[in-house]
Amino acid sequence: MKPKNAFYAQSGGVTAVINASACGVIETARKYRTKIGKVYAGRNGIIGALTEDLIDTSKESRAAIRALRHTPSGAFGSCRYKLKGLEQNRAQYERLIEVFRAHNIGYFFYNGGGDSADTCLKVSQLSETMGYPIIAVHVPKTVDNDLPVTDCCPGFGSVAKYVATSIREAGFDVASMAKTSTKVFVLEVMGRHAGWITAACGLAAEKEGDAPQVLLFPEITFNEEKFLTKVKESVEQYGYCAVAVSEGIKNADGKFLSESGLRDAFGHAQLGGVAPVIANLVKEKFGYKYHWAVADYLQRAARHIASRTDVEQSYAVGKAAVQFALQGHNSVMPTIVRKSSKPYKWAIGMARLEDVANREKNMPRDFISEDGFAITGKCRAYLEPLIKGEDYPPYKNGLPDYIKLKNAAVPKKLPGEFKI
Amino acid sequence: MKPKNAFYAQSGGVTAVINASACGVIETARKYRTKIGKVYAGRNGIIGALTEDLIDTSKESRAAIRALRHTPSGAFGSCRYKLKGLEQNRAQYERLIEVFRAHNIGYFFYNGGGDSADTCLKVSQLSETMGYPIIAVHVPKTVDNDLPVTDCCPGFGSVAKYVATSIREAGFDVASMAKTSTKVFVLEVMGRHAGWITAACGLAAEKEGDAPQVLLFPEITFNEEKFLTKVKESVEQYGYCAVAVSEGIKNADGKFLSESGLRDAFGHAQLGGVAPVIANLVKEKFGYKYHWAVADYLQRAARHIASRTDVEQSYAVGKAAVQFALQGHNSVMPTIVRKSSKPYKWAIGMARLEDVANREKNMPRDFISEDGFAITGKCRAYLEPLIKGEDYPPYKNGLPDYIKLKNAAVPKKLPGEFKI
Repeated sequence: MKPKNAFYAQSGGVTAVINASACGVIETARKYRTKIGKVYAGRNGIIGALTEDLIDTSKESRAAIRALRHTPSGAFGSCRYKLKGLEQNRAQYERLIEVFRAHNIGYFFYNGGGDSADTCLKVSQLSETMGYPIIAVHVPKTVDNDLPVTDCCPGFGSVAKYVATSIREAGFDVASMAKTSTKVFVLEVMGRHAGWITAACGLAAEKEGDAPQVLLFPEITFNEEKFLTKVKESVEQYGYCAVAVSEGIKNADGKFLSESGLRDAFGHAQLGGVAPVIANLVKEKFGYKYHWAVADYLQRAARHIASRTDVEQSYAVGKAAVQFALQGHNSVMPTIVRKSSKPYKWAIGMARLEDVANREKNMPRDFISEDGFAITGKCRAYLEPLIKGEDYPPYKNGLPDYIKLKNAAVPKKLPGEFKI
Repeated sequence: MKPKNAFYAQSGGVTAVINASACGVIETARKYRTKIGKVYAGRNGIIGALTEDLIDTSKESRAAIRALRHTPSGAFGSCRYKLKGLEQNRAQYERLIEVFRAHNIGYFFYNGGGDSADTCLKVSQLSETMGYPIIAVHVPKTVDNDLPVTDCCPGFGSVAKYVATSIREAGFDVASMAKTSTKVFVLEVMGRHAGWITAACGLAAEKEGDAPQVLLFPEITFNEEKFLTKVKESVEQYGYCAVAVSEGIKNADGKFLSESGLRDAFGHAQLGGVAPVIANLVKEKFGYKYHWAVADYLQRAARHIASRTDVEQSYAVGKAAVQFALQGHNSVMPTIVRKSSKPYKWAIGMARLEDVANREKNMPRDFISEDGFAITGKCRAYLEPLIKGEDYPPYKNGLPDYIKLKNAAVPKKLPGEFKI
């Protein structure tokens, strides 16, 4: 009997290291050729499965797959597309099964965040609900660090390293010019609901007076007066003030400080541009000269300054996903288990998808200082190991040499088209 | 006779590598103790000289001075403060001489851009104009790459490497999500009058279809219709469009697309925020989902991804400045002379300050493609060597380990205060 093939797809916002997980999945699957046939990747995520647009990863050389480890973004394309419930859209699941059957797919690896874990959970139940035997394993990924059970989320450590480095560097810049120039600098970072990325900026402030002097968390209702007082204190004490602000901060009415009105496919508000709002508040109150930056995709794509810990964990969860599947574990997700913080030791654990799907892990309140503008020592102890180590990509012509795969299509076997 | 002391100051916007020049100046001066006494740095640039606020760099350890080579920003503080002409403010020059005389200063090293070269020129003429013997050498620095005579400007190569890397990484990100998410990404970069930094973004587009697909230069009047057509073509052909835009682009009326109304100490408009303007144009016309980023200070402070070529040249101009001074050259500036592009070979040259001060080097028109949205092969050949090589800083706790000097004050010798 021919071994079953595997399906792998990337889902949701991509990261600097999601391809390292893809590398872990594919390299590990290639080691078990008698058990796993080919790894087919969904072109543009789950949409590729629904439209029978599969990529044959066996056409990629060993070196090309290896290069995924140092290439940011989603090499096979990702998408924001959430499967509805079985009751609401049975046709989608029937189609998935049709495609899986046509291509002899028995393993399903889904690389994403909370929404994707829910999709993976539903796929893992297909044998029960629709009689199609499949083993589905979720591969965790999200810069937001908001998945439950796992100690941290692959993808987060690299954003954390990037934003902490960036605010430190900008802080040095502002400090050296503050006498006659910019006194307040605002960096806007991602993290719609959870302040993990904002907290990571706080890692740069190791000593009294270090930038950033103010953090604005989405967990803490924005209080203009307290914020402005804090900025003034910093300018008077240190000559300047560097602020890191989450895109998701809200005022007392529960409104985002910067609401563009746009929504993504999941109905989430599309945010961006709170930095100028904050900077203007300061300017109007005190007249301080200001500058602001919005890191946007730069932060989650910054493979050039990825955390080695994060790269290793991303690879490890991809590898473990395949091992779990081969051991017959269905409906699970590899997790990162922290064994100790100093020295940092971690291992791979296993979570049940029903414990992961659709749950968000928020920042514990005791990770944020009492006044709401800084991180606590407990938070630092948690975050610090996650940004440790560098894992530089190779360079060519002065630039990171990232790979673009051939992404050869698997010939279609089904008639007609499926509309998504 | 006691050897003369040297005065060193940083001027204008700081960079990721201006401290490498400081390192070059101080380390070299320390090698000639019989000829140069101490190196006094101006706290916050030339203001430190006027207010007799001098830093005694001899109090810093060898290791601390060495660490300047990998530390971004201005370690002694910089300022935006331009000396007026001798006729307009003779008192300023008399004060400078008073301070120089009190501290036995015979060498003046000024590390800055075009405005600073003009100040340095005026100081170099003090023996002629006011009878105070001094040797003044300018140390070139500007991310804008707009100084004449020199082939390139220390500070530019590192920004160039950062922005090209960033737009490549963001381009990969957008490409992988474009099917269902963001189709247009806009990165705003510095370069008020000259498009060198925008051009550097173009280095990332090595192959047909690579990001960025559109560059918006300050040298090219913004044409909304042509721009939108170009964006549409890119989205239709490649699925997405990455745009790099200079903060300084203007429309046909000569107005900045984003004019905040603020002005800096030199009367330059303070820009920022053209990225959202551009992104909105696209959204309104085509409805494409967009994202935008503003790199702001992140780009000029990004020592973590400095160009090795740039670091070496920055150090070399600092070193050469001291050597020139010791050879008795007054009113000069070390330059970078390109010997060949492939392989890249460079040497240090010497320019007369009167040929440097107050002149801007613009992008040659043949560095920009005919349609105005890309760089030419000629431009690439010029730029590529400048971003070559990496020169990573040391890391501690997962973050670049940058130095903060003690910056011990030289005891004041003059009575009273000088108001600036």
